[in-house]
Amino acid sequence: MRYLEDMEVGQRRDLGSFTFTADLIKAFAAQFDPQPFHLDEEEGRKSLFGGLSASGWHIASIWMKLAVADGQREAADAAARGEKPAMWGPSPGFRDLRWIKPVLAGDTISYASEVQSLRASRSRPEWGVLQMRNTGTNQRGELVFSFLASVFVQRRHPQD
Amino acid sequence: MRYLEDMEVGQRRDLGSFTFTADLIKAFAAQFDPQPFHLDEEEGRKSLFGGLSASGWHIASIWMKLAVADGQREAADAAARGEKPAMWGPSPGFRDLRWIKPVLAGDTISYASEVQSLRASRSRPEWGVLQMRNTGTNQRGELVFSFLASVFVQRRHPQD
Repeated sequence: MRYLEDMEVGQRRDLGSFTFTADLIKAFAAQFDPQPFHLDEEEGRKSLFGGLSASGWHIASIWMKLAVADGQREAADAAARGEKPAMWGPSPGFRDLRWIKPVLAGDTISYASEVQSLRASRSRPEWGVLQMRNTGTNQRGELVFSFLASVFVQRRHPQD
Repeated sequence: MRYLEDMEVGQRRDLGSFTFTADLIKAFAAQFDPQPFHLDEEEGRKSLFGGLSASGWHIASIWMKLAVADGQREAADAAARGEKPAMWGPSPGFRDLRWIKPVLAGDTISYASEVQSLRASRSRPEWGVLQMRNTGTNQRGELVFSFLASVFVQRRHPQD
C-alpha cells in the first residue's frame, strides 16, 4: 500500500483480469444470487442480458479479490525496498456502484483503479482521504462496472 | 414482485436474517477477500474490527440472496392469488453503499428494504422507478449495512 504522498490525481493502477467462466458464474449464483439468468444458459439467452450473465456481486467480489492481491504485491515491493508499507484504513463507503453492461460467460474483465482526489483528513492529521474510481472493462474495451471508493490512507509526513 | 401501484413510500419489507458463522466468513474471504482479519480469529482481534469480521462483499451478497428468496416468495403469493407477478427490470445502479459497523463471527444480521421514493418513468410509460433503502441490522439493533437501490418496476396501469 502506498502513502498519500506517493499518489497523484489521475494515477492509474491495473489490478489484473479475470475470466468469468460459466461454471464460476453458476457457482457464485447458486450461493448468493440464484436468479435464473445467472444459473442457466437458456434462461440467460431468454433474459434481457442475452446470455448466462454473472451476478453483479460476483463482479464486485472479484474486484475485491484482485485489489487485495494487488495490495499484497505493493506491500512485498515496499518490503523489498526496505520500506514499511503504508497502512490503509477502512473505507467510509462506496458511491455510485454501477453495472453498466452484462458480463456474460467467457468474458474477461480487466480491473483498474484511478486516483480521483486526494486530501488530508481534517480530523486525523496522520491520515489522508483518497477517492478512487474503480472500473471493470471487458475484452472489447467496453466499461462494464464502476464505483467510487473513499479510503483512509496513511500520510508519510503528517506534519505537512 | 409487486407493481409500482402496490407500493408506497415508507413501506418496509423484512427480507430475513442470516448468521455469519466463523466458517462462512472464512470461506467467503478465502474465495474473494483474503485479508487477514477476514480469515483468522487472532488477526481479527488484533485489527480495528476487534474480531473475525465478515467481508463487506459477503454482507452485500447475503442481502442479494435474501432479496432473491423474498422475490420468489412474493411471486408465489401472487400466483396463489391467481395474479401475474410484476416484472422488475435491471437496476441502473446502487448509491451510498456503507458498511457502518463490523459484522463479527456469530452476529445475526436482519435485512430489510424500505421504499424511499416512487415515480413513473418519463421515457418508458409502462415502467416506474423505485428507490429503496436496503439495510442490515445486527442482533443488538445496530445498523451495520445500508445502500440505496434504484430499480425499474412494471406499472399495473401504464395509462395513468
